[in-house]
Amino acid sequence: MHIRGRFITFEGTEGVGKSTQLENAANTLKDLGIDVIVTREPGGTPMAENIRELLLSPREEPVHETTELLLMFAARAQHLHNRILPALDKGQWVLCDRFTDATFAYQGGGRGVPAERIALLETLVQGEVRPDHVILLDAPVETGMARAKKRGELDRFEQETLAFFQRIRDTYLARATAMPGNYHVVNAALPLEQVSASVSALLAALVKMSESA
Amino acid sequence: MHIRGRFITFEGTEGVGKSTQLENAANTLKDLGIDVIVTREPGGTPMAENIRELLLSPREEPVHETTELLLMFAARAQHLHNRILPALDKGQWVLCDRFTDATFAYQGGGRGVPAERIALLETLVQGEVRPDHVILLDAPVETGMARAKKRGELDRFEQETLAFFQRIRDTYLARATAMPGNYHVVNAALPLEQVSASVSALLAALVKMSESA
Ligand SMILES: Nc1ncnc2c1ncn2[C@@H]1O[C@H](COP(=O)(O)OP(=O)(O)OP(=O)(O)O)[C@@H](O)[C@H]1O
Ligand SMILES: Nc1ncnc2c1ncn2[C@@H]1O[C@H](COP(=O)(O)OP(=O)(O)OP(=O)(O)O)[C@@H](O)[C@H]1O
Ligand SMILES: [Mg+2]
Ligand SMILES: [Mg+2]
Repeated sequence: MHIRGRFITFEGTEGVGKSTQLENAANTLKDLGIDVIVTREPGGTPMAENIRELLLSPREEPVHETTELLLMFAARAQHLHNRILPALDKGQWVLCDRFTDATFAYQGGGRGVPAERIALLETLVQGEVRPDHVILLDAPVETGMARAKKRGELDRFEQETLAFFQRIRDTYLARATAMPGNYHVVNAALPLEQVSASVSALLAALVKMSESA
Repeated sequence: MHIRGRFITFEGTEGVGKSTQLENAANTLKDLGIDVIVTREPGGTPMAENIRELLLSPREEPVHETTELLLMFAARAQHLHNRILPALDKGQWVLCDRFTDATFAYQGGGRGVPAERIALLETLVQGEVRPDHVILLDAPVETGMARAKKRGELDRFEQETLAFFQRIRDTYLARATAMPGNYHVVNAALPLEQVSASVSALLAALVKMSESA
């Protein structure tokens, strides 16, 4: 019998530990014998990574919010159809660094794009496809910013104000409350070993769930 | 009194003479004392030109039709808000090499994207904004292809089949029939001087119309 893989996304504000926990989660899954791929948004295919560069590189020309929104979803269409769906169909689990929840949080909560505009593009690009699980790494925005700053140069998003990121955190938390079945909120303000232990335990539970499904 | 400029687009299949007639039209308007800017799609601003490169450069990775559609409209959002609308507001006339009619023709007629998906993005990006006039340069696709081929290397679209371009021509003609008030069909198969004379006469008529409006 052929079983479709699981689509799991990692969300949260800047520097909160998404990339770190994605790697930790991939190792946990591999140890449990799961075939897993790790990818990220915007990006994940050569063309989608080109779109990512366009989006993230600081530029003099003001980027209209609709342009940003459409570029995000253009990269997503490419990523979904050329990488994510083919992997899920082969039975692989897909761990993705950000997905559409980030668009609701950044373009919606952050920039003020109405959620209905985003939802309309979500359906246009994804049809019925949604992540099976969203792991929200939650911490005060200052905590993540302090961690991210240690890494050096800031991209076009990282140059935004604290208030911008505060709206993003609030939007993520509101979505988690609205969709408790899909969202798993992890306290990412804790020391690294504790966050990693929570994420590993969560992944092990999701594997158990999928085996009894 | 402040008068808004006119937004005029030039459409048609490959090599039919759009760029040539755009220049001719700009000269005609300047001679009549009109302040005019000439621009093109996809492109027209530095960022939109970057998106154009992404769209047109041949690549190994298959480009999903939704990706192509969203990139077109991402470039359009940037072009419209940063260049076209500001020029029209200053009273300039904007002559544009292709616009949304090309999306209906190429992505719709050519690639088979349902017109409703395109119309949905048209409204999302443009609101109520539409060209005041569409000048459709119409000729058998072979005529345009033969002209274009003289220019050398083919981009990702120019590598398509004749049947693809035939569907595009048909879509343009169907739109012209459906919207006779906006569309002006010019026979572009005629010798250059005759096409130029038709286009100049048309532009002069549009200026007269705008002055009596
Ligand atoms: N729980 C933690 N405690 C302390 N430091 C951490 C913790 N988690 C991650 N870090 C460190 O914080 C920095 C940012 O982590 P990481 O790159 O994983 O965050 P991110 O959410 O992927 O950031 P970005 O949003 O910029 O992609 C790294 O140097 C990482 O080692
Ligand atoms: N009526 C005409 N008769 C003969 N040659 C023409 C005519 N109009 C344009 N040409 C020539 O055909 C070639 C293509 O014209 P042009 O570049 O204006 O077409 P285009 O529609 O802008 O092409 P593309 O779709 O590739 O941008 C040019 O070399 C131009 O000089
Ligand atoms: Mg990261
Ligand atoms: Mg041209």
